[in-house]
Amino acid sequence: MQISVPKTYKTLDTQSLLIYLSGLPSIAEKLGGKVSDWHGSEIGDGYLNFVFLVQGPKGKICVKQAVPYVRLIGEEWPMTLERMGFQYQCHLEHSRYCEQYLPKLYHYDSQLYLMVMEYLHPHITMRHGMIQGIYYPNFAEQISDYLSHSLFFSSNFWLSSAQKRQNMAFFDKNSELCKIIEDCVFTDPYWEAKNNRWTSPQLDHIVAEFRHDVQLKLAVSRLQLKYLTSTQALIHGDLHTGSLMLTPESMMVIDHEYAFYGPMAFDVGNVIGNLLLNYFAQDGHATIEQPREAYQTWILETIEQVWLKFYDKFMGLWESQTTGEPYCEPLFGDSSGQEAMAEERHLFLCDLFTETVGFAGAEMIRRILGLAHTLDLDSIEPPERRAACEISSLRLGRELVIKAQSYQDIKDVTAAAKQMCQERKRQSIQELRI
Amino acid sequence: MQISVPKTYKTLDTQSLLIYLSGLPSIAEKLGGKVSDWHGSEIGDGYLNFVFLVQGPKGKICVKQAVPYVRLIGEEWPMTLERMGFQYQCHLEHSRYCEQYLPKLYHYDSQLYLMVMEYLHPHITMRHGMIQGIYYPNFAEQISDYLSHSLFFSSNFWLSSAQKRQNMAFFDKNSELCKIIEDCVFTDPYWEAKNNRWTSPQLDHIVAEFRHDVQLKLAVSRLQLKYLTSTQALIHGDLHTGSLMLTPESMMVIDHEYAFYGPMAFDVGNVIGNLLLNYFAQDGHATIEQPREAYQTWILETIEQVWLKFYDKFMGLWESQTTGEPYCEPLFGDSSGQEAMAEERHLFLCDLFTETVGFAGAEMIRRILGLAHTLDLDSIEPPERRAACEISSLRLGRELVIKAQSYQDIKDVTAAAKQMCQERKRQSIQELRI
Repeated sequence: MQISVPKTYKTLDTQSLLIYLSGLPSIAEKLGGKVSDWHGSEIGDGYLNFVFLVQGPKGKICVKQAVPYVRLIGEEWPMTLERMGFQYQCHLEHSRYCEQYLPKLYHYDSQLYLMVMEYLHPHITMRHGMIQGIYYPNFAEQISDYLSHSLFFSSNFWLSSAQKRQNMAFFDKNSELCKIIEDCVFTDPYWEAKNNRWTSPQLDHIVAEFRHDVQLKLAVSRLQLKYLTSTQALIHGDLHTGSLMLTPESMMVIDHEYAFYGPMAFDVGNVIGNLLLNYFAQDGHATIEQPREAYQTWILETIEQVWLKFYDKFMGLWESQTTGEPYCEPLFGDSSGQEAMAEERHLFLCDLFTETVGFAGAEMIRRILGLAHTLDLDSIEPPERRAACEISSLRLGRELVIKAQSYQDIKDVTAAAKQMCQERKRQSIQELRI
Repeated sequence: MQISVPKTYKTLDTQSLLIYLSGLPSIAEKLGGKVSDWHGSEIGDGYLNFVFLVQGPKGKICVKQAVPYVRLIGEEWPMTLERMGFQYQCHLEHSRYCEQYLPKLYHYDSQLYLMVMEYLHPHITMRHGMIQGIYYPNFAEQISDYLSHSLFFSSNFWLSSAQKRQNMAFFDKNSELCKIIEDCVFTDPYWEAKNNRWTSPQLDHIVAEFRHDVQLKLAVSRLQLKYLTSTQALIHGDLHTGSLMLTPESMMVIDHEYAFYGPMAFDVGNVIGNLLLNYFAQDGHATIEQPREAYQTWILETIEQVWLKFYDKFMGLWESQTTGEPYCEPLFGDSSGQEAMAEERHLFLCDLFTETVGFAGAEMIRRILGLAHTLDLDSIEPPERRAACEISSLRLGRELVIKAQSYQDIKDVTAAAKQMCQERKRQSIQELRI
């Protein structure tokens, strides 16, 4: 594929970035002093883009620029620059409903495909924090706020159908990044796709097993079909713990480039799937000085709270508004209508829960057998230890995907995770005895 | 709402149309002779647009032009001209997959919002034909061809996800006509919407009953949510028997202005719902000279054949191709994958059947209690006789909507229709005896 790069575009380095920024009065004002007082450095570790921190005597800012290829792979995987536009628009859109969870936007340049925004400090990605065993006591409250507001207010329960279709017309063009998800999540891990990688030879048997597991492949393909044909809400589209910047007090959501109108459960499932991956990874990070049992308990409690709070908040938003077009007020405004709607909302959220469980399982599998791994597991050494955590994650992931409907309650999910983890420990002890 | 009409647009009358057409060499060639030899007449009886027949010494053509308002209502209901673009694009798109069922397109003018196409002769609308009791022995074969091809080839089972999203981005803009369906089908018939009309006072009791029928309103709202959030295929969007031009040999599909990416079952359900409406209407058209029992039997057989042939053809198309992205070839290419896929396709079509039954029921209700009626029923006099047919249709419509899942087979649907019809006849006879 040949990428057409507009003549007005150029990839900035720290030097040319500073000169560029000096031409933006509001940004210069934030940084303070003169351009010669500023310092820029590239700090990105993402898959796609370059990210710069720029510091001046008065303040700091963060700059993100798209390059016409996948940063992780290099120029041999070209990728259109337009992804920055989808990120920007979703950032703007979600900011309307839950501003406190998104970094402030200072500037957008549609010719350089570049965003200037608030520098988050002392935030680190939730993934890095969890690997260190940091507790985030407010996280369940915050992410359930973000999820419920971003999903509800971009859906037909709030927007007019005309407004929603207008938004969809824009995000439908984000097919390049959607295709990455379609391949990396729903298909590649289940066949000999060239970009797959896994802990080998320890996982070779399970890789082979999954590739012949028709039941699993069918269930994942059903999820893929949902991803392709359901337009419930404007979803973040890549809501793993690396897209969450945290301190113990604050949460910020970044990296909206995968945004599109898709199934709500994809976002909720990604959050829960990544928390579960970290739960299993903790066994690989535990040391005698820092055992992780208590932290694992906190993770499972957090998973439960994420769902339960999301349920309550989504339900609350839906109850309190009467502008939605489906289940509209003229049909359900009276007392018998309201009573029936309470049950109907519950049923809707039950379906959403089932889908969430499935998407969470698919995320867990693809992060171990596909192209894009997570540091939670990848940083565990030696490989035998890592593989043990990964096998538990894969076994639970598979269960979640194929038996999603049998999980009636989030506590069923956390109980299954706990059981899987304990079984593995028992097995390890037995192996030691032998 | 103020409609902005481009300066280059003007509404044509027969006179200015002929002058316009004389400037199009290929059209002039088709008509033959000189402009003074041509004759134009307005023949439209549609809700939205003007339709002209133009005859020349050599041939005839049909011209359709959008006006910036709803033709049926007048200038007090403004409507954007862009609807002609959606019609044109869907016509083009569906022509790629089942050309033989769409009139040939000769010319499209994006500034006058005007299409010039094949004049269909001696075709009449299926609705008019069925009111006269005309048999269409090829119809089930033809419509199942059209449905299976237009739905399959515009879906993710055939198109790449990028191509499908690109198509969707265009049709998402058709929100104005989608909104008409959202209101007229899924909400207005169930509350005191100002445009509703019905056979009064005969149906007053059932109107009141439906407006308090929470179970029915919930089920209809669920269908609405599906209409709003499912993008399975590029659907016709208004596939009633008035959009089908027939002779006993030939079928042509017209009027694609409601097209958008929606649930496949909406189109299939509209066809079946309108056939069922006509089935019940036959009792109102039967005379001693022309009893309609045999015709009614043919209608029910046709309904069965429409579904069964659609099922087989859709299944066949899906089996024979391997380009689809969900359930992709690398995952299911081997013999165990193929075996599993046979069952999976069946399950997909079972879900599609359930949705079809629901949408068929919603169509039957809205055509009797909402704004847009059908001549099948409206032409029955006196009102008592019409109301009797309408009540049976409404009763079955309600059953189909609320109990869609309990119909396992198309024969369950036709049996229910037959039973409803017979019960009504028994009741009428008893009333006569009293």
